[in-house]
Amino acid sequence: MTNRSNGGGHGELLQVLRDGKPRTRAELAALTGLARSTIRLRVESLSALNLISAIGEAASSGGRPPSQFALNASARVVIGADIGANHAGVVLSDLNGEILARHREELAVESGPVVILEWLVATARRLLAETGRASRDLITVGVGVPGPVEHRTGRPISPPIMPGWDGFDVRGWIEGELGVPVLVDNDVNIMAVGEHAVAFPEVADLLFVKVATGIGSAIIAGGALQRGAQGAAGDIGHVRLERADGVACSCGNVGCLEAIAAGPAIVRALWETGTHIRDNRGIAQAAARGDIKVIRALRQAGRDVGEVLSTCVNLLNPSVIVLAGSVAGAGDQLLAGVREVVYERSTPLATKTLQILPTQMGADAAAVGASILAIQHGLSPESIDSMVAETAP
Amino acid sequence: MTNRSNGGGHGELLQVLRDGKPRTRAELAALTGLARSTIRLRVESLSALNLISAIGEAASSGGRPPSQFALNASARVVIGADIGANHAGVVLSDLNGEILARHREELAVESGPVVILEWLVATARRLLAETGRASRDLITVGVGVPGPVEHRTGRPISPPIMPGWDGFDVRGWIEGELGVPVLVDNDVNIMAVGEHAVAFPEVADLLFVKVATGIGSAIIAGGALQRGAQGAAGDIGHVRLERADGVACSCGNVGCLEAIAAGPAIVRALWETGTHIRDNRGIAQAAARGDIKVIRALRQAGRDVGEVLSTCVNLLNPSVIVLAGSVAGAGDQLLAGVREVVYERSTPLATKTLQILPTQMGADAAAVGASILAIQHGLSPESIDSMVAETAP
Repeated sequence: MTNRSNGGGHGELLQVLRDGKPRTRAELAALTGLARSTIRLRVESLSALNLISAIGEAASSGGRPPSQFALNASARVVIGADIGANHAGVVLSDLNGEILARHREELAVESGPVVILEWLVATARRLLAETGRASRDLITVGVGVPGPVEHRTGRPISPPIMPGWDGFDVRGWIEGELGVPVLVDNDVNIMAVGEHAVAFPEVADLLFVKVATGIGSAIIAGGALQRGAQGAAGDIGHVRLERADGVACSCGNVGCLEAIAAGPAIVRALWETGTHIRDNRGIAQAAARGDIKVIRALRQAGRDVGEVLSTCVNLLNPSVIVLAGSVAGAGDQLLAGVREVVYERSTPLATKTLQILPTQMGADAAAVGASILAIQHGLSPESIDSMVAETAP
Repeated sequence: MTNRSNGGGHGELLQVLRDGKPRTRAELAALTGLARSTIRLRVESLSALNLISAIGEAASSGGRPPSQFALNASARVVIGADIGANHAGVVLSDLNGEILARHREELAVESGPVVILEWLVATARRLLAETGRASRDLITVGVGVPGPVEHRTGRPISPPIMPGWDGFDVRGWIEGELGVPVLVDNDVNIMAVGEHAVAFPEVADLLFVKVATGIGSAIIAGGALQRGAQGAAGDIGHVRLERADGVACSCGNVGCLEAIAAGPAIVRALWETGTHIRDNRGIAQAAARGDIKVIRALRQAGRDVGEVLSTCVNLLNPSVIVLAGSVAGAGDQLLAGVREVVYERSTPLATKTLQILPTQMGADAAAVGASILAIQHGLSPESIDSMVAETAP
């Protein structure tokens, strides 16, 4: 009780300042409902931590003008990391999400957790050094991995394309090295968080769909990322589809959407008709050349994805669907196929104002999303209150 | 600013007291972070409104023991109303959701909004009178209707089985009569709110499915009801199903789940094979008699519903699916069919701990849900702060 009374409220104060607008102590008292005396103490400790600083001067009716305080976004940094099937990227951002440094490499997730995470930690330290930041400036790390993650523990669970990672304590391992809180989530969730924060901050209901080597989605509902009971929400790649009847999927089942509409399935089907393409990049190149077989395959994959999405639209009634991933981004054909089926099949009410759009983020999407997740956690009232408590005399 | 500073914080105080535990002013200050002087004023105005009252005496180390305050749940009441296709029900509850009086009648929603809402208002007034409550004791009204509702305005939008109700200002009409805030939502949403609050308060991700004259669902994700962009979330009745190919649906489309698995579709199919059943009640009676044709029809309806739900499970990863409605409740066969397909088709991770259960609520489910919605709104910080502001000198 006494702790909460004396120690709490720093986080609440910082929440108010996250919009970047400078405010006086009196304004902060009015906005938070905290006592003036409490505000004085909180402003003092947040300033001591360099999380806020006095700037400018407020208009005043006379006498000494009262100081204004604002979030000091450049005072601290976060790391956002994106571990893909065949690449890994790390970005260092300030508390506004502005990227200060980045690095990306071709790396196979199959190399296993220790190899990949040692690289991640070394890269994070290098980016800190390059930008002249001390390791105590780092407040949180966000990491995306290409498979399902148990949100509570930050461990991948039965991830199909991550051999050696099942149950590995990714969070604990990185925390042990970098000494700050680490959040682990699947790559589609973090891309959705990034897309939502950067491109659609005002949208409450958004469905983010990635079509690449696998097919997955992430749900923003009521303005928040919904992970479901086991962190498995959004797993549309293994919905059974009539057209996929009998086709074996890498998950061990048959008839999954992923088994006919993801990159490897498109490559396999094209190969059988004599079009020899190797991977997702090859699909994009052939589509750009106007290869009619490839274009038709992408259109059909879009219709297949659209069939599953038409159910998702009736169920979730999102206002925006964002399509991302190397296969979805191989020209406009996949998007067109999705639109064709969703606008035909979903209910008129659910599609009335629905927009289906390509992603507006670049190659850094996942790493940016991971850093936004890290900032959200790092600036949460609980995190701030505990930072203050740790540094208290 | 001044208003917020002087007028706010009542709602926050009441939120803390909603668990029913009495607390001293010092405890309230510690829990809310509000200044002691602010707490004194807030406790005074909430006591004046009779929303909280001093009870018992706290243990003290000497001197006069400090007073403890608790939510006065019986001080105010809410109305919960459930408008079904062929019935309507009204309950009067206290602020703990305890039902003080109820009334239910056979009424056709087709009679149109004015007939039904006049009945609803008259019934609400009668229940107030029967329980000796003044109309000023009423703080909010919650209403469920059997069709989609635009959440922002409280108007039904293109409701298929509610002729004359499209765009009708249900909220405004009742507010004009009863003079308190009114919340309107579709019946499946309010049943889900009731089921969640009463039977599964600790579950964050729940899918509530109603199979009756129509088929619909409601989503609890991240602990909250998700309505989607147009309030149309949960509309699984019009998902296209392979087995329903070519079957006309009342929505104007063909191939919808509802066209083969809802009550009227089952009745029609049975009639064609010579089993003459009239309605959902007839289905339940025949199932109870052990009529094998009816039992098989229910099992198949369960499989059809299960096919759509298997996609919903992959997408939302709920920990509980609740089945309700007169057709779902006609014996155990429909539930068995749902389980059969969902446990076969959804991903192992999403079904690992998934429970599929019949509703634990009775005939009052929707009216109870509507009163819980009314209580949640009536005790929200904003509502309480505005009640205090209205009665301020």
